[in-house]
Amino acid sequence: MTSLEKLCIDAIRVLSAEAVQAARSGHPGMPMGMAAPAYVLWTRFLRHDPRNPAWPNRDRFVLSAGHGSMLLYALLHLTGYDLSLEELRRFRQWGSRTPGHPERGVTPGVEVTTGPLGQGFAHGVGMALAHRYLARRFNRPGHAIVDHHIYAIVSDGDLMEGISHEAASLAGHLRLGRLIYLYDDNRITIEGSTDLAFSDDTARRFDSYGWHVQAADGDDLDAVSEAIAQARATTDRPSLILTRTRIACGSPGLEGSHKAHGAPLGAEELQRTKEALQWPLREPFAVPEEVREQFRAAIDRGAGWETQWRGALEAYGRAHPEARAEWDRWQSAELPPHWDAGLWEIDLTTDALATRAASGLALNALAEGVPNLIGGSADLGESNQTVLHGYGAFGPDGVAGPNLHFGVREHAMAAALSGMSLYGGLRPFGGTFLVFADYMRPTLRLTAIMQAPVVFVFTHDSIGVGEDGPTHQPVDQLAALRAIPGLTVIRPADARETIEAWWVALQRRGPVALILTRQKVPVLPRGTGAARGAADDPLPEWISQAPAGGLPPVARGAYVFAQTPRATAQAPELILIGTGSELSLCLSALDALARRDVAARVVSMPSWELFEEQSADYRRAVLPPDVPRRLAVEAGVSLGWERYVGNAGETITLNRFGASAPQAELFAQFGFTAEAVLARARALLEARRPSNAHS
Amino acid sequence: MTSLEKLCIDAIRVLSAEAVQAARSGHPGMPMGMAAPAYVLWTRFLRHDPRNPAWPNRDRFVLSAGHGSMLLYALLHLTGYDLSLEELRRFRQWGSRTPGHPERGVTPGVEVTTGPLGQGFAHGVGMALAHRYLARRFNRPGHAIVDHHIYAIVSDGDLMEGISHEAASLAGHLRLGRLIYLYDDNRITIEGSTDLAFSDDTARRFDSYGWHVQAADGDDLDAVSEAIAQARATTDRPSLILTRTRIACGSPGLEGSHKAHGAPLGAEELQRTKEALQWPLREPFAVPEEVREQFRAAIDRGAGWETQWRGALEAYGRAHPEARAEWDRWQSAELPPHWDAGLWEIDLTTDALATRAASGLALNALAEGVPNLIGGSADLGESNQTVLHGYGAFGPDGVAGPNLHFGVREHAMAAALSGMSLYGGLRPFGGTFLVFADYMRPTLRLTAIMQAPVVFVFTHDSIGVGEDGPTHQPVDQLAALRAIPGLTVIRPADARETIEAWWVALQRRGPVALILTRQKVPVLPRGTGAARGAADDPLPEWISQAPAGGLPPVARGAYVFAQTPRATAQAPELILIGTGSELSLCLSALDALARRDVAARVVSMPSWELFEEQSADYRRAVLPPDVPRRLAVEAGVSLGWERYVGNAGETITLNRFGASAPQAELFAQFGFTAEAVLARARALLEARRPSNAHS
Repeated sequence: MTSLEKLCIDAIRVLSAEAVQAARSGHPGMPMGMAAPAYVLWTRFLRHDPRNPAWPNRDRFVLSAGHGSMLLYALLHLTGYDLSLEELRRFRQWGSRTPGHPERGVTPGVEVTTGPLGQGFAHGVGMALAHRYLARRFNRPGHAIVDHHIYAIVSDGDLMEGISHEAASLAGHLRLGRLIYLYDDNRITIEGSTDLAFSDDTARRFDSYGWHVQAADGDDLDAVSEAIAQARATTDRPSLILTRTRIACGSPGLEGSHKAHGAPLGAEELQRTKEALQWPLREPFAVPEEVREQFRAAIDRGAGWETQWRGALEAYGRAHPEARAEWDRWQSAELPPHWDAGLWEIDLTTDALATRAASGLALNALAEGVPNLIGGSADLGESNQTVLHGYGAFGPDGVAGPNLHFGVREHAMAAALSGMSLYGGLRPFGGTFLVFADYMRPTLRLTAIMQAPVVFVFTHDSIGVGEDGPTHQPVDQLAALRAIPGLTVIRPADARETIEAWWVALQRRGPVALILTRQKVPVLPRGTGAARGAADDPLPEWISQAPAGGLPPVARGAYVFAQTPRATAQAPELILIGTGSELSLCLSALDALARRDVAARVVSMPSWELFEEQSADYRRAVLPPDVPRRLAVEAGVSLGWERYVGNAGETITLNRFGASAPQAELFAQFGFTAEAVLARARALLEARRPSNAHS
Repeated sequence: MTSLEKLCIDAIRVLSAEAVQAARSGHPGMPMGMAAPAYVLWTRFLRHDPRNPAWPNRDRFVLSAGHGSMLLYALLHLTGYDLSLEELRRFRQWGSRTPGHPERGVTPGVEVTTGPLGQGFAHGVGMALAHRYLARRFNRPGHAIVDHHIYAIVSDGDLMEGISHEAASLAGHLRLGRLIYLYDDNRITIEGSTDLAFSDDTARRFDSYGWHVQAADGDDLDAVSEAIAQARATTDRPSLILTRTRIACGSPGLEGSHKAHGAPLGAEELQRTKEALQWPLREPFAVPEEVREQFRAAIDRGAGWETQWRGALEAYGRAHPEARAEWDRWQSAELPPHWDAGLWEIDLTTDALATRAASGLALNALAEGVPNLIGGSADLGESNQTVLHGYGAFGPDGVAGPNLHFGVREHAMAAALSGMSLYGGLRPFGGTFLVFADYMRPTLRLTAIMQAPVVFVFTHDSIGVGEDGPTHQPVDQLAALRAIPGLTVIRPADARETIEAWWVALQRRGPVALILTRQKVPVLPRGTGAARGAADDPLPEWISQAPAGGLPPVARGAYVFAQTPRATAQAPELILIGTGSELSLCLSALDALARRDVAARVVSMPSWELFEEQSADYRRAVLPPDVPRRLAVEAGVSLGWERYVGNAGETITLNRFGASAPQAELFAQFGFTAEAVLARARALLEARRPSNAHS
């Protein structure tokens, strides 16, 4: 190690410790321990352009151990990203670009929001999938326009989390050779030595997944360098490098101690550390000029790489103009012209269709118009109807079709989809049973924080699952998904709404969850006129253009689906609100109410989130405040429905777990029948005065 | 294999295929494939008593691959459990004892509700922990009253799930030698060959965790037998036996095909199968008499084992009367006399205490009165305040104190806790940050289905987390937990409520989630009289006796915490509802309202579930229906609060993700201050007529 190299590495250590000290909060130990390997990676290997963090062919770097955020912030600052020293001083403060854990969209150069352990690890696998797919799709002999690596730093905690197993197993199976992970093998966790709870032979474990595994002393720059070079040379397997490090390296009092994991060193120990390192500057946040120069070489190097790549892209365009045009289309976030044409051609002249089946039709209709669709299922492709027919599978053997087989790995699937969407150029989707949304919840939340545009296809959405019983019947998942800010949940009522839901999903900026039935449901005739009630409202801002048939009502979240003749002449006395498979029960009840000449209305409400975004006028037009008699019908827990039914309203919901029996019997036993809806509706109408139901 | 053995094994196959065929739904492939190894295990090794499925020293058998439920039902029926042939005929029908996936409490002999993959695997690890702990606690030289094994059948899907990694790694680390798992290595998943998505070297993987790994041909009874014997002889490591099987073994047309995974064979193929197996009986569900006899030997064998064990227990009691008395107390589900005495002695004369700290005090106060408390944290023991001070840790080296180090393995922790609680004799608890409840959600749901009495300690419960930022700040978790039927969620407001919450938690029958602050909160003076408003209401049925000080108000879920003087003279004009750290904001606002002589009330509402269980009179007394002006304050999403604030009410909540900054700043920035509560309260009071806020 030259003295300049030592100074550069110490700069990372000192900046990290100083920022944590200034914030009186944070994790100094990891950045100090991993400073040397990170220095090697960032100065000898990482191909990036600090002045253009969006350069498509950059290497991706993921800090899976997100608590070590100062390591990344120090590197971004030093190598010339738009991240000032002032921001480092404001580490973990309100409105800074240096939040406690790295957040994509807040800090230039942060690829993935990390912190919840294991997530970065699995997101990187998604990026490697995206790389493989785009390389196979676009590269031509002599023209490798997609050609880089995905690096990550992962910690003990990342490797203890279950998602690391799923993701590593998938990456090994698919032989994702562009993946190179440095494992910060410091043998310390929050509670103390890893001996307390962890005795995996990690090398052997990753070997069992088919990874290429090496070990290196983290402080031996050449050893780390050699290992990374070997990993790059190993193109048929992902690589893990066990870098043996010491947490809080450089701190005389805390090196090797778990006390340096999540707390500042303390002013005194920080001073002792700077002395022990022979750090030349007294002033906090001061960086020696030669260190700056050394790191900032990244700017020219990066510009050079990018210029070279842009030249290669031009040459590619000359040799393969159509592929180049396609590349540009995929890279833009815009949907291609007429992308949705296939959707509106789906034949709906059928009596009944499971919404999962309608979703399969929609997806296949979109495959041509949206050629960068890619996705699959966690071993339930046929059940989830997520297979793109006529397209190939993505396999380990060099084939790279858009049909992904994730195996029984819901959590890694979610993260891989998210990673693919962050990578750029692709529109990923993935399916499982709704009840197993629970297995991927930590990642669902991250996609919502990052607003990653992933479409989650959740089928088998209620007791309609039938015989598989309560373990497989979601009752709580719908409410629990609605709790996640920034996630759009859509539960379409029939085939038509399902198609519209897909139309919405591909245009939303953030993640979308489609909630679909296993069982057949009727294809419902929409009341003429009613659904178009608010056609004059402005288009939602995330929609560029409505189709010829007008804005699909699902895009408004809720709409008047049908009314009794009496309700066209006067204000409704009663509103029935349904979602998904329960809408048809409301419509059957409406028929009976029409025969009794009641002024009643049925509102279809596939998405709360979309409805909340509409104008107050629109919302009042659909659910007039002066109609207190309301009944919502949904085969799940009632949580949250009071918002729409109000004090005087009621719900037919399921506030318990389901049971194992044929689905028709379950619907009958649990009171989800047209007769039950009608009976409750009539009771509501007969109540002299709407009571205050909620005391 | 003798011809009788073959007939017995075929009986499992035929019964399974026939039941699935009769139900027109189910999974015949796995029971047929695993029939032979399961036969060996159940007839040559499993020590159980079909006539007393609750015998404490029985071997535990967990069918982690719960979709193969007919394998278990066939074995339970044949070996003489109280499960008639009629129940097998009613497989997957409403009200039967043979639901689609095994459900504890529904079918005698089912130890764990399984189906969601990986859960049974991890629950078994919890059972092995319980075995180790109880054996160390109670066994004496010459008196091994806790002395058996935990067996499971696990599938490809179980091993692909992330939770299998966490649980296997933990079991390997802790050297849980009583664990013996048979892996149904059939190389088939729902989508087809495991080659599609799975190429782990499973033997090597488990070896890396420190397991003892063997392989055996599943159809070679002696090979399976020998492997199980070796596994039993290996006492210092858990064992995995890769049993190579063929799915749907015996079916001429479907053996080895993924089509037999989740669908009936079909009447014709079933007939062909019976012919191919040379099955002697035409009638469905008919069992040859010699098969019955062979299996039913289990009854006498089981009675013999149990009698022998009861004798040993008597001898133990004579030699160690105190230990025997303690054993009996642990085995009974009752809490010991004066178990809660320590709780009421906790010194509350302090101004402010984080509720996580109060929880730590409560837990330590309980440790003496409830000696079978056992628990820990997923690497956050100090943060979660879950350490039992003065007690030892549970380690791999033979020590078995009650302090568990789960590592960064939230999901496996939850399942292990659940498995311990199902095992019997223990009161398990476990902690992590509330935001990471997401990582354990599939298991939380299972504990709710099974009503397993586990206490989950979730700390760092809001933006009060501060600098760690949005990835670590729960905003959606509280609502999402409230969505799970059968889970009691309690968010105490201060130290006093936290102590009462623990008092409640240990008496509830099902799982309880305690939601606790990281930051200090004031210890609040309760308004005299107000809190006792409904002291005359009957005790909730799950409480055996109220403490001398009267029923702790937390047990009612919500109660009047304080009122302005004016509100004692007239009905309140306004109700403020707070939970957790936000209750003190409501009380500050109440002071200001008192100065303005407003009739206002503050309701503390730590638990929705407990409140919903109270009488209508009690609920109306706390939240009178004729007081429409209500304001709920909670630092999380508003989902569901409309139930309590009604149409005219409002909420101060957080319907977005948090941010990284010091916690006081976050509370101010997001409007959680006494001033903001007062301002909203005054605006509500000034509104001429409560409006219908929800259109």
